[in-house]
Amino acid sequence: MRNFLLTLEYDGSLFHGWQRQPGKRTVQGQLESVLSRICLADVRLDGASRTDAGVHAYGQSASFGGDFAIPPERLKLAANNLLGAGPPDAGRRARVGDVRVADAREVPDGFHARYDAVGKKYIYRMLAVPEADIFMRNACWQVAGEPDAGAMAEAAARMAGVRDFRAFRASGGAETGGTVREVLGVAVYEDAFGRGGRMISIEVTGAGFLYNMVRIMAGTLLGAGMGRISPREIDGIIESGERGRAGPTAPPQGLCLAEVYYGREAMKAAAATRFARPCRSV
Amino acid sequence: MRNFLLTLEYDGSLFHGWQRQPGKRTVQGQLESVLSRICLADVRLDGASRTDAGVHAYGQSASFGGDFAIPPERLKLAANNLLGAGPPDAGRRARVGDVRVADAREVPDGFHARYDAVGKKYIYRMLAVPEADIFMRNACWQVAGEPDAGAMAEAAARMAGVRDFRAFRASGGAETGGTVREVLGVAVYEDAFGRGGRMISIEVTGAGFLYNMVRIMAGTLLGAGMGRISPREIDGIIESGERGRAGPTAPPQGLCLAEVYYGREAMKAAAATRFARPCRSV
Repeated sequence: MRNFLLTLEYDGSLFHGWQRQPGKRTVQGQLESVLSRICLADVRLDGASRTDAGVHAYGQSASFGGDFAIPPERLKLAANNLLGAGPPDAGRRARVGDVRVADAREVPDGFHARYDAVGKKYIYRMLAVPEADIFMRNACWQVAGEPDAGAMAEAAARMAGVRDFRAFRASGGAETGGTVREVLGVAVYEDAFGRGGRMISIEVTGAGFLYNMVRIMAGTLLGAGMGRISPREIDGIIESGERGRAGPTAPPQGLCLAEVYYGREAMKAAAATRFARPCRSV
Repeated sequence: MRNFLLTLEYDGSLFHGWQRQPGKRTVQGQLESVLSRICLADVRLDGASRTDAGVHAYGQSASFGGDFAIPPERLKLAANNLLGAGPPDAGRRARVGDVRVADAREVPDGFHARYDAVGKKYIYRMLAVPEADIFMRNACWQVAGEPDAGAMAEAAARMAGVRDFRAFRASGGAETGGTVREVLGVAVYEDAFGRGGRMISIEVTGAGFLYNMVRIMAGTLLGAGMGRISPREIDGIIESGERGRAGPTAPPQGLCLAEVYYGREAMKAAAATRFARPCRSV
């Protein structure tokens, strides 16, 4: 019995989220369909995170096992060919797909992408811009006004630690084991972008997350940036445990699952470092 | 009777092109619907260019007239609100649309966006990258290999001038007045992009174009970059008038209508200058 770990990237815009749902286009559903064709068996993928509709990923992890002969590198190639995400072929004008296998490797029997994960990093992007940027409509939350990234960073620093994040949990969450989570770091970055705009990127690294927690943190941090919430109030908001004290749930298109960690040292290092995204100047 | 000129930008991915077609989502159709609501009258838009399905625009021009009281700046605001392209409103999590009115101005009675245009600039983008970039799937043509931008620029220089571009016209074109067109400039630019990729941008400025001419020029220039066509062959290809001698028609998602010109001096200046796109590093 062999066991594989896949690293996946996807643009969440045209999916109803990660989790398989009958009759709906989902990332898990599409990947299982493709992998089952390749492996000639019924593949069930276990994903590290069940990202919502519209949410993107640079580094989702998913594992599956079975009696397959195929080497991981060929599995990646074959899957990407079917997904429209293989190496570009100048001879065929094939359409590029919206999900890609970034990596495939063999892992020990019993390794599980979700249960063995020690944490993850999410990135939330909001673009402060005077006029709508239609080409970025699916890639970020576009906000009015002039959020103060410095105030956002101050507020963000108050969010780290082992805390009861109940105030940052949406109703409808199905977590077991209480609402205490460990956030290793919340960093705020700001870059000039587009026509007089600023892209504010919030990177949250944590050992675990409640439902919509990063999106509620992002909405709260925007509130801090707009002066509606003072950074000094953050501790009180957390301690109150009241959802109404925190900010709005930021929309899904700004959220991206950057990375899943399987070692605590790697996660701690990542919490302290900006996630490396290649420049996409056009 | 008042007359308006609109400058429009759109992401062509989810439209069946510019031109109104019953039962299909088109840019012209969507804009006419929105403008008719605002002006309380049946608005018919005349567009400078009938861009194909999948083709984008930074600066399409379109004109319309009527007995409207509305000032152009309010027309722009109202249209963008309905299109989901107005200034971001932090209070409403409205989805950003895929077409926007970038400018609206009043023009003299009788001014016509297409008939008064003296020329246009198109940009064709191709991304040479070893692995598919799924986030850029609708924004460019992704090609394999290592195209030589220098050879492409040499070949591009041979394409300028007043020439019979019949070899660069797709069948199905409906041009009147022969196949001679004036190309003021063809420039090739190259930028590092993404994971070890290079974005090659071809800017073509011309007084007029045949059907699919820029896309066939782009496919031909890729051939020159890959060594399949020598720059010295370009004159012979043009003179032969044979479609089969030129390269393939590059796919629509790489093409963008950058600007429409109403003055020859402005067009000549633009032919000699790189089109200014704001940086979109993410």
